[in-house]
Amino acid sequence: MNNAAAPQDALVIFTPSGKRGRVPVGTPVLQAARTLGVDLDSVCGGRGICSKCQVEPQTGSFPKHGVTVGTDALSPVNEVEARYDRIRGLAPGRRLGCQAKIMADAVIDVPPESQLHKQVIRKSATERAMVMDPAVRLHLVTVPEPTLDDPTGDFQRLSDALQEQWQISGLHADLEVLSTIQPVLRKGAWQVTAAIWDDGREPPRLLALWPGFREAAPLGMAVDLGSTTIAGHLVDLTDGRVLASSGLMNPQIRFGEDLMSRVSYSMLNEGGAEEMTAAVRDGLGRLSGALAEEAGVAREDIFEAVIVCNPVMHHLMLGLDPVELGQAPFAPATTDAMTLRASELGLGLHPAARTYVLPIIAGHVGADAAAVVLSEQPQQSEDLLLCVDVGTNAEIILGDRSRVLACSSPTGPAFEGAQISSGQRAAPGAIERVRIDPATKAPRFRVIGVEAWSDEPGFAEAVAAVGGVSGICGSGIIEAIAEMRIAGLVDPGGLIGSAEQTGAALIEPQGRTHAYLLHDGSAAGGPVIRVTQGDVRAIQLAKSALYAGARLLMDEFGAERVDRISLAGAFGAHISPLHALVLGMIPDCPPEKVVAVGNAAGTGARIALCSRAARREIEGAVRDITRVETAIAPRFQEHFVAANGIPNSADPFPALAAVVSLPDVSFNAESGRRRRR
Amino acid sequence: MNNAAAPQDALVIFTPSGKRGRVPVGTPVLQAARTLGVDLDSVCGGRGICSKCQVEPQTGSFPKHGVTVGTDALSPVNEVEARYDRIRGLAPGRRLGCQAKIMADAVIDVPPESQLHKQVIRKSATERAMVMDPAVRLHLVTVPEPTLDDPTGDFQRLSDALQEQWQISGLHADLEVLSTIQPVLRKGAWQVTAAIWDDGREPPRLLALWPGFREAAPLGMAVDLGSTTIAGHLVDLTDGRVLASSGLMNPQIRFGEDLMSRVSYSMLNEGGAEEMTAAVRDGLGRLSGALAEEAGVAREDIFEAVIVCNPVMHHLMLGLDPVELGQAPFAPATTDAMTLRASELGLGLHPAARTYVLPIIAGHVGADAAAVVLSEQPQQSEDLLLCVDVGTNAEIILGDRSRVLACSSPTGPAFEGAQISSGQRAAPGAIERVRIDPATKAPRFRVIGVEAWSDEPGFAEAVAAVGGVSGICGSGIIEAIAEMRIAGLVDPGGLIGSAEQTGAALIEPQGRTHAYLLHDGSAAGGPVIRVTQGDVRAIQLAKSALYAGARLLMDEFGAERVDRISLAGAFGAHISPLHALVLGMIPDCPPEKVVAVGNAAGTGARIALCSRAARREIEGAVRDITRVETAIAPRFQEHFVAANGIPNSADPFPALAAVVSLPDVSFNAESGRRRRR
Repeated sequence: MNNAAAPQDALVIFTPSGKRGRVPVGTPVLQAARTLGVDLDSVCGGRGICSKCQVEPQTGSFPKHGVTVGTDALSPVNEVEARYDRIRGLAPGRRLGCQAKIMADAVIDVPPESQLHKQVIRKSATERAMVMDPAVRLHLVTVPEPTLDDPTGDFQRLSDALQEQWQISGLHADLEVLSTIQPVLRKGAWQVTAAIWDDGREPPRLLALWPGFREAAPLGMAVDLGSTTIAGHLVDLTDGRVLASSGLMNPQIRFGEDLMSRVSYSMLNEGGAEEMTAAVRDGLGRLSGALAEEAGVAREDIFEAVIVCNPVMHHLMLGLDPVELGQAPFAPATTDAMTLRASELGLGLHPAARTYVLPIIAGHVGADAAAVVLSEQPQQSEDLLLCVDVGTNAEIILGDRSRVLACSSPTGPAFEGAQISSGQRAAPGAIERVRIDPATKAPRFRVIGVEAWSDEPGFAEAVAAVGGVSGICGSGIIEAIAEMRIAGLVDPGGLIGSAEQTGAALIEPQGRTHAYLLHDGSAAGGPVIRVTQGDVRAIQLAKSALYAGARLLMDEFGAERVDRISLAGAFGAHISPLHALVLGMIPDCPPEKVVAVGNAAGTGARIALCSRAARREIEGAVRDITRVETAIAPRFQEHFVAANGIPNSADPFPALAAVVSLPDVSFNAESGRRRRR
Repeated sequence: MNNAAAPQDALVIFTPSGKRGRVPVGTPVLQAARTLGVDLDSVCGGRGICSKCQVEPQTGSFPKHGVTVGTDALSPVNEVEARYDRIRGLAPGRRLGCQAKIMADAVIDVPPESQLHKQVIRKSATERAMVMDPAVRLHLVTVPEPTLDDPTGDFQRLSDALQEQWQISGLHADLEVLSTIQPVLRKGAWQVTAAIWDDGREPPRLLALWPGFREAAPLGMAVDLGSTTIAGHLVDLTDGRVLASSGLMNPQIRFGEDLMSRVSYSMLNEGGAEEMTAAVRDGLGRLSGALAEEAGVAREDIFEAVIVCNPVMHHLMLGLDPVELGQAPFAPATTDAMTLRASELGLGLHPAARTYVLPIIAGHVGADAAAVVLSEQPQQSEDLLLCVDVGTNAEIILGDRSRVLACSSPTGPAFEGAQISSGQRAAPGAIERVRIDPATKAPRFRVIGVEAWSDEPGFAEAVAAVGGVSGICGSGIIEAIAEMRIAGLVDPGGLIGSAEQTGAALIEPQGRTHAYLLHDGSAAGGPVIRVTQGDVRAIQLAKSALYAGARLLMDEFGAERVDRISLAGAFGAHISPLHALVLGMIPDCPPEKVVAVGNAAGTGARIALCSRAARREIEGAVRDITRVETAIAPRFQEHFVAANGIPNSADPFPALAAVVSLPDVSFNAESGRRRRR
């Protein structure tokens, strides 16, 4: 029997952290964890309500730790745990850390879901682990009642209680939230759940208050606001899970397809910028509504949004006239990261929700590029990494641990299917993959929404179910032209040879040029889909701009080649690295080192949403990035002109040449003669 | 001739500060002042534009300083000064401190208007000097242009320039202001005037930007938001001058005359609090419009408002439901001082203007009482000071250096002319002063808007010009009843004697009581103005509440008497200290120690508007004030009952008795018999 006057200590070892120390017998596990700096979650602060602090006590012999642990290391299951188990269910072997007391030497495992700063492994090229460190957290707090002797403000007593129980000091609140405090405190009988926003820089802010314990997790929204599409993820801010993803067309499209036409609209139309601001804010509001509906939650449960976008969208979204971005020296109104009320942008979230907008890098290189940096981490790379975010504008980032450069290149909308004869956006029915038989020169293809290739059984039925083949999207046209190049249907100058020159029966003359028939759906009332000479020219212009931008950065960096390439962008997710190389979109690189990383800007937005440390990291990284302006660099023009052709075997593309052989053909549009050399 | 390689120093002495030091010959006076820590104003930063840095060089022998100064101590008047003199005029003997260079030993006087931290002597009881230290200041700043090599944001370059040229670091800006930066910088050719709000706690904030140099001073608005009236001053934030004063009825009046009826309205009507919030914000907006119109300025030139008010108005203005203020323990939603955007309250000022709301002291003692403390400074008083702010509620403050106590007492609206038979608000035509001839018992009076007394020549014409005698206001009814008491027409119990009992022909029976005829305007179609028994009873109730509150604080303080009394409030400005004492409104005190200090709450608001230090001071003082709750103090009820009578010579009012003799009459309403003892 213990002598109460001389309490004994027990050794406690937490796994997987390995943190250990002696605590007095009778110390609750949660308290021991806090004392020893072990990362154990709790929203209710040890009141046995939230169950976030579940632990798994271990028994047996632990030679590594030098202890043997019996079944009596923790106090028996108490009434609170028993009740919790009855009502909510407690997995076998699990205990509530706030209820179980350490009675003897113990080894206690903290399962991943009980860690406050959970590691979330991202499925990306870098497999970088992300640690949950969001700005918004919930805390259960007990507030002392006012008395006649101390009628201080309810907000002041709440603030003091949060300081005492959760070490949150200097609380602020908007008027809208202040007005809810008194009824909620009384409804909750002075025990309430507070949603606190704390970015570690501004004073912590009370976003919302609920009576009693609130179970539902606070949510966040990560938005990639593109010129053409607005894409968003709804994220659980306790564990980083994506609850819904949604996208919509940027309503600004009606003011101009590309950014510069929108800048022009603003310059030529009184109130034009305001119109576009209203349009994009309306789009963001509809996005939050769509995400909430998809996840079956209320928009008011979203407490923070993180937005990434290019500089023109950045300005228009914030209500800043983009006119200066359209003329040298392309000075932005502001470049720093910003924290705003979400209501200022009309996002339709909780009335007190906050918005974090990532910094923009330069007048032509936006917060979306910053988000790609956050996702792909060139500044941490040992080898030289090229990141290309392909959209209406391409954001290009090149660097390694020593230095990071960034530029933007006006690729135009061809990569997104615009300006292509049968082009369309990536949607069910669009051709997205193409292969051309080198012998027969006949194509086969795959369509979005259909598993089978066009020459496989079941294709016809499946494609009919999505409404038939409707057109060709960006990744489809790239593969088609690259395959045409490999099959000898297109020469290094970009000319499509005639049927006679190429031996391809599917090539038809179109005026003085030729077109390649990919699919004839006319029998079923569908479209005839061809790759025309104009399509090849449009893609040549776009890919030259992209390639020239990358080369410009390589010149600035003093690099002759890159070690790795990340292809980002909604479209980058679907692009075939080999075909991109064949087309000369990107500098020479072993195809296995070219990785499609999906929507890296959106991923970066999600990382910033889940981690305050990531915000500080990207703000620092952006300050260190060297901005390169393509619009005034003479070498950009040189590279652009030089890159107009499509690689041939004689070009310095050794990595590509090691993988694929490009026929050394040359066609003459004038004569239509075949000149195989 | 000086050897340029070995520049000489000169001694410079600034008066009146006496600061002295050696500076290299050729140093501009402004720069020397800054080096030596002399308070010399400048908005343009030494560019010869703003003329705020005017100085008066002295010549002759200064034995006190041990120097003799010749006329060549400063460089000759230069072209900038000559041009300024031609265009704007420079007073004889004045120089521009940024242009005049120190060439030899010099004595330089800084006139008061050139001091940045000007002392403004307040005409108040304490004659406390106020030092200008406003949160909003203008600064002329030159911003580097963006270049293609450094296309950082315009806001970042402006921010850096303010840091470098004015030591303002960490600038923030609202979106509305951010959107103006680019056009203004270009219009001003990269030289702009910035209005910066810096309260010394939150990050400095850019409120507005103008191209080039802006002459007009930034303005502020100090508001005393009362239950009945809203009064405001428009203040020049560079020198504290009041440019306009205006007032209007609180539009909330329609929801209830007093505070508790408004709290009830909120409790009984769904959306009632919101309605009242909208009403008071509308009133504040109209006040800012009226002030701007009166001063002939734009509302957008007002960059900060300071608001003081009682707790119920505080909550309603902020959109907080006042229901908890109406029931024990009277907990406010929040008590701390607040800084808000003025637009949140719909004040109609500059879009980026800020609002500072003083802290409230307790659920019943408001920010208006805090403002009285700021104005009257009981916490700095060597002797015991009682401050009484008389309104619909009376705020009562008692203290000295050792300790300050505060309470609120529900006096009701009688002191403001309500609940009085011929009562009206203080407005032209209202009787405000009354004297009764001790021999004839006949009254004479003065009317607001008329210089002459009613028995003086020219009164009839003058009073006709203001529309005739229309009623009696608060100060008038107090003087009338006090004079009736002195003339023996009212006994210590508050009974009006009959004409027979008092020998006053003007007393008429009214049922079982009597009334004193003050003015019969019926011949001219005007009102008949009497002091009725009901009027005396209403004033007795109000004055008992006031007196009981003061006595309660004296009990808590352990004081038998007070040394000084400040009578504050719009009505306190017009009250006669002697008559207030005769009526027993306030504790006994030598009449010459009772001072009407006018609208002390408004003065406190004005002090806080002009001085950030004053804001910190009052926030600290409020934390130290002991709050006393009248509603639950048994002694308050005792004092209230005991104070119902009007003093007589037998009462312990030695200071009053030394000045005026109160007839020892006693009337019996039942018999109407005169009983002179």
